[in-house]
Amino acid sequence: SSVTEDEDQDAALTIVTVLDKVASIVDSVQASQKRIEERHREMENAIKSVQIDLLKLSQSHRNTGHIINKLFEKTRKVSAHIKDVKARVEKQQIHVKKVEVKQEEIMKKNKFRVVIFQE
Amino acid sequence: SSVTEDEDQDAALTIVTVLDKVASIVDSVQASQKRIEERHREMENAIKSVQIDLLKLSQSHRNTGHIINKLFEKTRKVSAHIKDVKARVEKQQIHVKKVEVKQEEIMKKNKFRVVIFQE
Amino acid sequence: SSVTEDEDQDAALTIVTVLDKVASIVDSVQASQKRIEERHREMENAIKSVQIDLLKLSQSHRNTGHIINKLFEKTRKVSAHIKDVKARVEKQQIHVKKVEVKQEEIMKKNKFRVVIFQE
Repeated sequence: SSVTEDEDQDAALTIVTVLDKVASIVDSVQASQKRIEERHREMENAIKSVQIDLLKLSQSHRNTGHIINKLFEKTRKVSAHIKDVKARVEKQQIHVKKVEVKQEEIMKKNKFRVVIFQE
Repeated sequence: SSVTEDEDQDAALTIVTVLDKVASIVDSVQASQKRIEERHREMENAIKSVQIDLLKLSQSHRNTGHIINKLFEKTRKVSAHIKDVKARVEKQQIHVKKVEVKQEEIMKKNKFRVVIFQE
Repeated sequence: SSVTEDEDQDAALTIVTVLDKVASIVDSVQASQKRIEERHREMENAIKSVQIDLLKLSQSHRNTGHIINKLFEKTRKVSAHIKDVKARVEKQQIHVKKVEVKQEEIMKKNKFRVVIFQE
């Protein structure tokens, strides 16, 4: 009958509509998937870039540590060197003091008079 | 016939079920998309934050490098300074030695006696 | 009629096809979701790992800053120490000069003759 035919036509249209809808969902999901994977690649590249920079900075920081150790060693040597020089200056001070004291004695002894008289 | 009507009703129910299923898939996919985008935003913020901190740390590390260069320069000057002082101390030692030697001569020469007698 | 029966069978097949398609989309979306979540976990772990390393490096860099401050303090003390020693050497130089000058005087005064004669 034509009622059944109309119903069958409606059913067919609905099925076509559903098929269209399903097809558009598949497209939408695939497009979304592509965008997600693109964003993932960008983020993974950003993370890799950060990891590389972090590695370089760590290496640079390690080198700085070595330089600082060398500087500490240099400063320690300079400090020891200056202690030596200070000790020499103190020894010299003793010598100079002795010479000054002896000079005072010489100066005292050099004050003499000669008196010659006939009784 | 009522058999075809029942089959048509079953077909209609199935199509409604399929439409419902498709609608729920669309909702589910959109909800999932929202969560994924939210998580992406969080990760991208975390990555940006790390990039900023890394930049600051690199700058700070560069400054440290400059300070260390200044320290090296300072230490080099101190080392040169101490070499000068050491040279002066050594020159002074020569002067002090000469004075000590001359003093010994003076001390020897100062031992004299005066004898006056009448024959 | 058999025409309607064939149409009904076609409609049923199409509905089955659509149901299969919908089921495969659900599977595909869920599989994709799993992969996305797995990739997210990997990226979030990578980001956490970078954040931890960055924190350690920042701490290490801060310690380096303290060490450099100590080194600066040490160098400052050494510089002050060497200024002291230099001042002592200069004072000593004055003493040595005075002793040398006095010695010249003594040497001059020591040249004397004694003449005794009878008129």
